[in-house]
This record gives sequence, structure tokens and C-alpha cells, in this order.
Amino acid sequence: MKENKKQNWRSKLHIIIYEADTPKGKLFDVVLLFAIIASIVLVMLESVEWIDNKYHDILDISEWIITILFTIEYIARIVVVKKPIKYITSFYGIIDLLSTIPNYLTLFFAGSPPLVAFRALRLLRVFRVLKLTRYIGESTNFVRALKASRAKITVFLFFVVILCIILGTVMYLVESKESGFTSIPRSVYWAIVTLTTVGYGDIAPITPLGQFIASIIMIMGYGIIAVPTGIVSSEMTKVSKKDVQTNTQSCPSCASEHHRDDAEFCHQCGHKL
Amino acid sequence: MKENKKQNWRSKLHIIIYEADTPKGKLFDVVLLFAIIASIVLVMLESVEWIDNKYHDILDISEWIITILFTIEYIARIVVVKKPIKYITSFYGIIDLLSTIPNYLTLFFAGSPPLVAFRALRLLRVFRVLKLTRYIGESTNFVRALKASRAKITVFLFFVVILCIILGTVMYLVESKESGFTSIPRSVYWAIVTLTTVGYGDIAPITPLGQFIASIIMIMGYGIIAVPTGIVSSEMTKVSKKDVQTNTQSCPSCASEHHRDDAEFCHQCGHKL
Amino acid sequence: MKENKKQNWRSKLHIIIYEADTPKGKLFDVVLLFAIIASIVLVMLESVEWIDNKYHDILDISEWIITILFTIEYIARIVVVKKPIKYITSFYGIIDLLSTIPNYLTLFFAGSPPLVAFRALRLLRVFRVLKLTRYIGESTNFVRALKASRAKITVFLFFVVILCIILGTVMYLVESKESGFTSIPRSVYWAIVTLTTVGYGDIAPITPLGQFIASIIMIMGYGIIAVPTGIVSSEMTKVSKKDVQTNTQSCPSCASEHHRDDAEFCHQCGHKL
Amino acid sequence: MKENKKQNWRSKLHIIIYEADTPKGKLFDVVLLFAIIASIVLVMLESVEWIDNKYHDILDISEWIITILFTIEYIARIVVVKKPIKYITSFYGIIDLLSTIPNYLTLFFAGSPPLVAFRALRLLRVFRVLKLTRYIGESTNFVRALKASRAKITVFLFFVVILCIILGTVMYLVESKESGFTSIPRSVYWAIVTLTTVGYGDIAPITPLGQFIASIIMIMGYGIIAVPTGIVSSEMTKVSKKDVQTNTQSCPSCASEHHRDDAEFCHQCGHKL
Repeated sequence: MKENKKQNWRSKLHIIIYEADTPKGKLFDVVLLFAIIASIVLVMLESVEWIDNKYHDILDISEWIITILFTIEYIARIVVVKKPIKYITSFYGIIDLLSTIPNYLTLFFAGSPPLVAFRALRLLRVFRVLKLTRYIGESTNFVRALKASRAKITVFLFFVVILCIILGTVMYLVESKESGFTSIPRSVYWAIVTLTTVGYGDIAPITPLGQFIASIIMIMGYGIIAVPTGIVSSEMTKVSKKDVQTNTQSCPSCASEHHRDDAEFCHQCGHKL
Repeated sequence: MKENKKQNWRSKLHIIIYEADTPKGKLFDVVLLFAIIASIVLVMLESVEWIDNKYHDILDISEWIITILFTIEYIARIVVVKKPIKYITSFYGIIDLLSTIPNYLTLFFAGSPPLVAFRALRLLRVFRVLKLTRYIGESTNFVRALKASRAKITVFLFFVVILCIILGTVMYLVESKESGFTSIPRSVYWAIVTLTTVGYGDIAPITPLGQFIASIIMIMGYGIIAVPTGIVSSEMTKVSKKDVQTNTQSCPSCASEHHRDDAEFCHQCGHKL
Repeated sequence: MKENKKQNWRSKLHIIIYEADTPKGKLFDVVLLFAIIASIVLVMLESVEWIDNKYHDILDISEWIITILFTIEYIARIVVVKKPIKYITSFYGIIDLLSTIPNYLTLFFAGSPPLVAFRALRLLRVFRVLKLTRYIGESTNFVRALKASRAKITVFLFFVVILCIILGTVMYLVESKESGFTSIPRSVYWAIVTLTTVGYGDIAPITPLGQFIASIIMIMGYGIIAVPTGIVSSEMTKVSKKDVQTNTQSCPSCASEHHRDDAEFCHQCGHKL
Repeated sequence: MKENKKQNWRSKLHIIIYEADTPKGKLFDVVLLFAIIASIVLVMLESVEWIDNKYHDILDISEWIITILFTIEYIARIVVVKKPIKYITSFYGIIDLLSTIPNYLTLFFAGSPPLVAFRALRLLRVFRVLKLTRYIGESTNFVRALKASRAKITVFLFFVVILCIILGTVMYLVESKESGFTSIPRSVYWAIVTLTTVGYGDIAPITPLGQFIASIIMIMGYGIIAVPTGIVSSEMTKVSKKDVQTNTQSCPSCASEHHRDDAEFCHQCGHKL
């Protein structure tokens, strides 16, 4: 009976922590979201020197409160869930662990900042908590289109990288070293900065020939940027056309398909759908 | 009878101020538009130091003339309209008020510039005055497509912000502080500048590892920029297709419209078209 | 008879100068194109100080040769054409005149560079000479799509300008003057540089609040850039769909339309088209 | 019989080198790919001064090992293939030769770097080796769309270049020379940097008029960038639609394919589907 009670208590907590349909579950998610945002703002403020100097103690204490809260949450998640191993090895499980660890490490080592970056990853939870994907509308279509585009865009970006290596090498040979093209890796970096139209200007060609080649690269970049956009656009148009305008219902009389969603009669034989 | 006359006078003024179909109404709108542009040019010129030093008195007097004109216009709008409260609380009503106030405040306080920005918002009236939306063509479709895209693009931009926070934190840990990555907020700012391909160059990575990660961010940005474009393109194509693929024929039996071009029977009542 | 001969000579020259289908006409066009390119290269080289110092005489003589050739061409075009007034007042006629004048003016005034810019406009002839528009494929569709997009894009760009004025004013109030935001016009210039993702970096925010607002502007710009692309894409898709995939032929038996271009039989009733 | 054996040996080697379906062929391709990447990394590292100073001997020896391996591979390819001339004069054949030569030249001349750029071109083999094109999906459609777009985009980029020459000349006349607009070629370079939204900031207008014209150029560039994207998007949508809107059903009478989804009769022979 005690076991049953405990079970009951666990399933209640499970609903609060893992589901967001009950008022309590919603409250938990919102509080968690604010805690995540607070933890990130904290890490950000700590990195600003003058703030850290002035409010070091307050920041330190807040940091520990957040860390302990996250630790409790992490343990609660493990306790409550039926298959803890599955949660621990899941994407969110690993992120949850990694975002609690860094502060504990500071007890043993002086400053272990590299892991704080994982805390920002917790922000991805915002999509789950706020159910933002709901706003995407026909999200399955959207995701399907992105997946169909992904492979093509990967190949495209791969091609862009090779192009940048070639163009960077050429620019290294052409440009004088005073203008920043001191090595091939740096020149390749410059080619990427240019082709993607970012254009910092920390490295910029100064010789006429270098500027001429740079102009060609820029105009190429202007034309090339159309390719990924074209891929995504066409995939999305294709996907949205399939599903939105017609449905999969087939006419009981003539078996014609692709009727409009609001059609009540078959557009081929006039039979009632 | 006097009341009636006054009523008459009000309705005449109402037509001039709020409608643009009569010659007088058109003239009023054009004069207003020029006054708005003049007021913005004035504010701009005042902000240029050497112009302000040289022509301070002329600018000051012109400023007061414009302010008084705008005040008269604002009062006239309230007097003339039937439901003044509705106008006062409307978007344009608030902007109209806020763009007259700042100059009066200078009488009591020395310099109250923050409100002058609202004057620029009055420029939005240009769309109403010039009826520019008419040029957009099937503007309802256009607006419908933008609205359908808005939610998706908001989620997308939200995702971009989270990505920039993560990438900014990583770069803060990787890059040396001499190159401008002095705090996480600044690094996040840099990540946004880079991912959106703006690329000021005020902060730029100088270490090889930093430049390598920056290259990856840029190439990601090059691929990611395709997503919002794809969303808007596909929505617009979808919306415009609805009209292209259906015809203007209305059913002789039930008068429903938007039949497919190749439909032989009404999709609502099954009547032969 | 002499008159007739002269007429004959004029019509022959007319074919050479204005048409490009005969070998001589083709040769004339190609020679003209090279002369135009040479004239532009000359103007460019003259503007480079060390080249002008070293080869001043050669450049000057070449410049005069080109100018005289262009003058002869201009006179020949007037003599040969039937309606000289129409040519003189046409777009190309005015450009042809303006690109010959500047050098003559140097005889009377010391240096009259502003008009040399018109010479570059002659390069537009390259489209006519090389018949490049032919490569555009269904160019009428292409042009029609651009025209349909033009109005929408103009309104869009107008909206962007107003947005930049508002954002520029806000940034002027927010940012310190040390970072380059010395006046509202300069701030508006910065807003345009940022929103269009050009990002020179000559003016860049340095205060945290300024960088925060700048980040919002950049992310907005990232989303906004999708709009013109969406407009053009959807117009082009719409136009290309109408004409390429189906023709205007209607079935003689059942009068159904939108058959495939290669269809030989009606897809609705099977009747021979 | 010895001849036969040799033939056998050649055909075996042919399968290993030129085909990737057998385990040995796959291994060869992967080893080759790593050798190419290693060779490029080597060239990159040699160009970094402090690395070259420290590890000059190791890099030099590695370079010779790679060169000899590539030479053996090149000879093997010639020996094994049936039509050696065809291979030697092919795109990959020329690249393979040019990427082995530079190191041999260093024996006779002191430093012959210009040819090392060709080694990066060998990276294009990655597409063949990894069969990346397979990921593009309906790659024939993809390539067809790009080819159809290429002509239009070339004309478009040509137009952009002419526009940049005109705008560059105008800016040279308008801007003061202190801000970097020292010659027309440099101004044209600036116009390209600006219109393509790269925006280095090494040359930037400082006079109010120059900044005003620059603003117009940027806003134009913002609108113009939509054109190539629109071209590619519409071509891709067109191409992908051809496949989507038609089905895989083949006519029972004439076996023609690509019927419309709603077709009831074959569009080639009129037979009932």
C-alpha cells in the first residue's frame, strides 16, 4: 500500500514535470523556463568584467541557487521517469546534466567555463515548453520540406567550402601579405567571409589584381546565394501544394482523386463525396 | 438650425480631413504629407551640429510653426470625428499626439529629444495618403501570405536568436579578449552580426580556432538564410495559385465560386457547370 | 538618279549601323562594342593617378581618337536614320550625345569629369549588340514577372526606408556620439547599412543598449529580406506556370483548356486536338 | 598467355582505380580522398610562417611522399585505362597532372607556388568518391533547373556589373578622395562590394551626398538580390512540378508517360486510361 502511494506520488510528479496540459504542469514549465533564462542571464552578466567586479557575491550566490535547483530538477526527472536510462542518454538528458556540472567543478578547479555553453542549449526547451512548433502551422510539411532540402543544401555548402579553398589559395598567391593574406588558411577564411557576403573588412585586398578577383568572387557569391533559397522554396512549394490544396479522398463513383479540401462533390463525375 | 449648420460644417471638414476622394480632401492629404516630411527634415537638420549652430533661429521658428499646425490638425481631427475616443486611442491618434508633444515639453524641460522619433512614425501615413497599397495588386493575397508566414518566421527568428546565444558563448570561450570578445553579451552580438551576414568587422576573430568556428557560423548563416525566403516564397506561391488555378466562374445552381479550372461539376452542389 | 543613289547609300549604311543580321552589320556592332569598352577602360585608367602621370600623352591622344570616332558614329546615325528627331530624343540617342561631349568641353573648361559617367551607360548597348536578352529564354515572361513585382517591391522598399528613418532616429537618441552616430541623417545611413546587411563597420554601436537594438534590427533585416525574394519568386512561378506547362488551345469537342504543350488529345474527353 | 595475364592484371587494377563498387575500389577511393585532404592541409600548413619555420623538414618530406604517391597514381591511371589520351585531356586528367608538377618544379626553380592551387581542385573528386550527388535526390531535375537558370543569371550578373561601373563612376565624381575613392576602378570595386551586400568598410563614403547615394545603392541591392533567387526558385518549382503534377501511369495503348494526375485519356493517343 505504501508502494502504491509512492507509485501514485511518482505518477503525479511525472505529470507535473513531463506534461504541460495540467495547470500545475504548465506552472512547472513556465517556472523552469524563467529559471533557464535567469541562469543564462547570470552567465552573461558574470562575463562582463565591471559587473562581475561589483556584484560578484550576489552573482555567485544566485549561481549556486540556480545550480541546486537544476540539480534537484535533474534528480527528480530521473526518479520520476519509468526508464531513467532512456532519459539520461537522451538529448535533453545530457544537456540537463552538462548544465548542472560546471558550477560543481569550480569547487575543485579554478574556473571551468567551457561547459557553461551547454546551459544555453537548455533554451531549446523553450520550443517544447511554449509549444512554439504549433505556430509553424502544418509543421510536418515544414519539417518534411526542410529534411528534403537538407541533403541538397549540405552538398551545396560542401561545394561552397571547396570553392572557398580554391579561391583562398588563389588570393594568397595574388595578394600582397601586408593586406592580411598572410597564409592560405587565413585566405580561405577571407574567401568564406566574402562569398557569404559577411564582409568584416579585417582582411581586404589592396592590390588592383586582388580587388579584381575579389569582385568576381563577390558577384559569384551574389549569384550562388540563390541556389539554397531556390532549393528550400521549391521543396516548400512542392510539399505545401500536395497537401494543402487537395486531400487524399477518392471519389466513390469514379475514383478520381485530388479533390479540393472543401469539395463536397467529385469534380470529374459530380458524384457526392 | 444653427446646430444643423454646425453639423453640416463638421461633416464637410470630416470629408476633407478623413477622406481623399474629393479635390479638397486630396489637397489636404498632400499638404499634410509635405508637412510631415518637412517636420522630419527639420528634426534631421537640427541634429547636424554645424547646421544647428548656423541656422538655429530659423530651424526653431519652423519647428514651432510645424508643431502648431500639427496641434491644430490634431484638435480638428478630434472635433470633427463622431467618436473622438476611438480616434484618440487608435494607432494613428496616439502617433499624432506624440508627434506634437515633444516641442511643448522643451518649454518646461531643457531638451526632450526621445519623443521626436514618433514623428517619423507619421510617415506611415504616406501609405494611406498615396494609397500605395493599391499598387501591391492583389493586396489581400499579399497580406494573407505575409500573415501566414509571420508565425513561421517568428519561430525561425527565435531559433536564430538561441543559436546566436550558443555560438556567442562558444566564441567567448574560444577567442582571445584582445579581438573584442570581452564578454558573452558582446560575443552574442558578434554572432548575430555574423549569422545575419551584416559583418561590421568591429569585432572579428583573430585566433585560428576562432576564425575556423566563425567560418562554420558564416556557412551556416548562408544556408539558414534560405529558410525565411523559402517560407515567404511558398506562402505567396500558394496564395497566388489559389486564384490562378481556380476560375471566376460561379455555379449556376448554388453560386459557389473558386472552381478548379478543369472542374466539370460544382464542387459544392454537384450541379453541372 | 543621283538622289536615288544617295538614298541607296543611306539605306545600306542604315543596315550596317542599325541592324546586326548582315556580316557587315555584325562587324560594325562588334567594333563599336570594343570601342565602348576601350573608352571606359581609358576613363578608368585616367582616373588612376600614377598611370595618368606616366602615360598622360598616350591616354590623351587615345581619348581624342575615341571621341572623334564616337562623334562620327553619332553624326552617321543622325544622317542615316529616317526620323533623326526620334533618334536624338531617344534613350540611346541622348546617351550617345552625352558620351561624346565631355572631351570637347575640356577644350573650353579645365576638366569636366561629371559627364564621363554617361559613357558607362553606353555599355547597356551590349545587351542589344550581343542579343543577350535572347539567353533569358521566355524573356517576355521574365520581364512580365519583373514588372508585376516592381510595384510591390517599390512599396516594400518605401516601407524599408521609413523603417530605417525610425530606427535611425532611435539609435541617434540611444547611442553615444563617439561611436559615429553624430546626427540623425548619419544614423539613418547606418540603419540602411545594417538592415540591408551590408555592414561597413565605419559606424557601429558601442554601448550595450545600442548593440542590443542593433541586434534586433539585424534579425529583423534577416527576416525582411525574404519579402522581396518571395514576391519575385511567386510572380515568376505564376508566370512560368501559366505559359510553359499548358497552352491556350481549347478542345474542339468539349472545350476544356490548359492542355499540355505536347498533348495531341484532349485529356477530358479524348477527342483529337 | 602472358599477354592475357597482363590484360587481366590491368582490368583488375582498372576496377580498383576507376570503380568504387568493389571493396578494394572503395578502399582505394577513400585512401585517395584522405591523401588529397592531407596534401591540401600540407600546402596550407606550409603557408603559415611559424609552422613552416618549426617543422620545415617534416613538411618537406611529407610533401615529397604525397607527390610521389600522386605521380604513381597518375601513371597507373594512364597505364590501366584503355584510351589514355581521353583521360589525359579530360578535366580530372589535367588537374591530376597539374597537382603533381609543382613540387618537381621546385627542384629547378626556387619556389613555384602558383600551381599548388590546382591541388585544391582535386577536392572536387570528393563528389565522385562519396557519390554526394546521390543525396541531391532528383539530381537530373536539379541540374536541369540550374542549367535553365544559368543563362538568365549570367545576363543578370552582367547587368549588375554594368550597374556597378556606372554607380562607381558616379561615386568617384561625388566622393572626396580622402575616403578611399581615389580612382574609378577602386570606386567600381566599392560599388560591387556594396551592391552585393558584402560591405568590407575599407572604402566607405564620408560626405553626406556620398552617403545618400550609397544608401540608394544599398536599397537597390536589397531589391535586386531577389531577382536571381526568384529565377532559381521558379525554375526549380517548374521542374519539380513537372514530376509532381504528372503521375507514373503509362498509357495501356501507346505506353507514353507523364500524364496529368486528373487526365482520363492519354494525351498522346486518346486511349482511355
